[in-house]
Amino acid sequence: MAGEIISGRLTDGGHELQQRVYFEDTDFSGRVYHARYLHFMERGRSDFLRLIGVRHRELADKGLSFAVSHMEIDFRRAASIDDVVTVHTKLKEMTGARIVLDQSVLRESEVLVHASVTVALVSAAGRAVRLPPRVCAAFAASGSSSDR
Amino acid sequence: MAGEIISGRLTDGGHELQQRVYFEDTDFSGRVYHARYLHFMERGRSDFLRLIGVRHRELADKGLSFAVSHMEIDFRRAASIDDVVTVHTKLKEMTGARIVLDQSVLRESEVLVHASVTVALVSAAGRAVRLPPRVCAAFAASGSSSDR
Amino acid sequence: MAGEIISGRLTDGGHELQQRVYFEDTDFSGRVYHARYLHFMERGRSDFLRLIGVRHRELADKGLSFAVSHMEIDFRRAASIDDVVTVHTKLKEMTGARIVLDQSVLRESEVLVHASVTVALVSAAGRAVRLPPRVCAAFAASGSSSDR
Amino acid sequence: MAGEIISGRLTDGGHELQQRVYFEDTDFSGRVYHARYLHFMERGRSDFLRLIGVRHRELADKGLSFAVSHMEIDFRRAASIDDVVTVHTKLKEMTGARIVLDQSVLRESEVLVHASVTVALVSAAGRAVRLPPRVCAAFAASGSSSDR
Repeated sequence: MAGEIISGRLTDGGHELQQRVYFEDTDFSGRVYHARYLHFMERGRSDFLRLIGVRHRELADKGLSFAVSHMEIDFRRAASIDDVVTVHTKLKEMTGARIVLDQSVLRESEVLVHASVTVALVSAAGRAVRLPPRVCAAFAASGSSSDR
Repeated sequence: MAGEIISGRLTDGGHELQQRVYFEDTDFSGRVYHARYLHFMERGRSDFLRLIGVRHRELADKGLSFAVSHMEIDFRRAASIDDVVTVHTKLKEMTGARIVLDQSVLRESEVLVHASVTVALVSAAGRAVRLPPRVCAAFAASGSSSDR
Repeated sequence: MAGEIISGRLTDGGHELQQRVYFEDTDFSGRVYHARYLHFMERGRSDFLRLIGVRHRELADKGLSFAVSHMEIDFRRAASIDDVVTVHTKLKEMTGARIVLDQSVLRESEVLVHASVTVALVSAAGRAVRLPPRVCAAFAASGSSSDR
Repeated sequence: MAGEIISGRLTDGGHELQQRVYFEDTDFSGRVYHARYLHFMERGRSDFLRLIGVRHRELADKGLSFAVSHMEIDFRRAASIDDVVTVHTKLKEMTGARIVLDQSVLRESEVLVHASVTVALVSAAGRAVRLPPRVCAAFAASGSSSDR
């Protein structure tokens, strides 16, 4: 149950995850180090997958893992120590071999960071492979593609 | 409220915080990178302080921050991707200028890492300063010292 | 002198920095964690600035620091433990308030990651400020703008 | 050659590695985040191993990797952005299954952090295994054991 709580929650067509900003996330400028937002977003993606039934460890047992292949990121405002931010993740597009997600990091209603993230499933050799039907079905069932 | 949830909870004489193991925490050995447990423990300390009313940002406004001065760490078992671990923090000793905490990272009932951590409050110049009465009182009120 | 060596070297219109891939950079997939390439690139930018005479600490004394405002990143191939990668940084464009850099991470002649990175100088309050003449002059003198 | 340079150098009975403090290493206190010193020290250990001929990747091919089992760390002084620190690593003790190293992080002649680090070679299952003769011989040949 607590596990559920720390994995965020599915929303209409996506996922939300609350995260705390700790010492480790900040740098000497007093704000969050830019690359840390990619960590926050990766946690959001991992928990979105988790809640729709896709586990990294099961994929790993087949020699597969998700890898980011492209990102466009706008860093608009910075978070600071003690802030609570919410990572919003939404499926934008899914093709045979890649998934495009729309992700935002918000502090209350303010968008701090917005990104378009393309991920692919890759083999141990680093080659992109087609998404297994189970993964596609999981996304479809999540209603994420039902933005119409 | 959600903020409360992600800050863990006070226990009899201490604090507990659940944390997920994400991609970022692991290394190519397949297990959690050793220094990441220090991050988990720092999050536990920060949230313990938060719940007893001590905020990093308020301290920072006075030019103060907590710094670790000594650690003894036993790395007994390793966590892996997707695991949920719980960070247990307990006050062991508090003197004028330093706090000694006992911290463990557990996966269910199994202790993965155990550490004794000494922290001090330091000025912007890096010098240890006496703990403000309010901080001492907050720890005392937390019942943390009531191990009798 | 050793300091010079670990800061990389200025090239015709840019900068090169060699970096080792360590345990900390990898994740359980066996490859480098995607956000770590942003660290490698930030080190490249910092050392480029250092070699043309711009220091973070001096800027910080005036309440200023560089912040990334936009990135477009292609993750093409992954690096692994023990690899040596080279970060190439080139000035693409400089306006009154922002700098656009072209950055690549290579393993020998193979481009692993390519990014276009926009940075701005921001005040302690997080507001973008005009680049000081000294910073503009430093970039100009680096020959980086001499792509003609 | 450059690879040699960025791997530090063997000293009489040990190893030295220079590292730069970057944005990523600092936190909002303005100093280096405590867990980052463990990264600096791990880089030192990896490069010490590298220069005496032991590669992580080769070990990994046999399902083996080094893991830290115990650390005692004194954080005496803090490093700041732009600092160059030197990691000193010395073999203290080697038994059938574990290696004890003495590590210090210095800024010029000032010891910032000192640690005693016990590492063990572990199998994919996480079990400690005896050090291969080749690894023992490499340490012996490094003169590290020549504290006589």
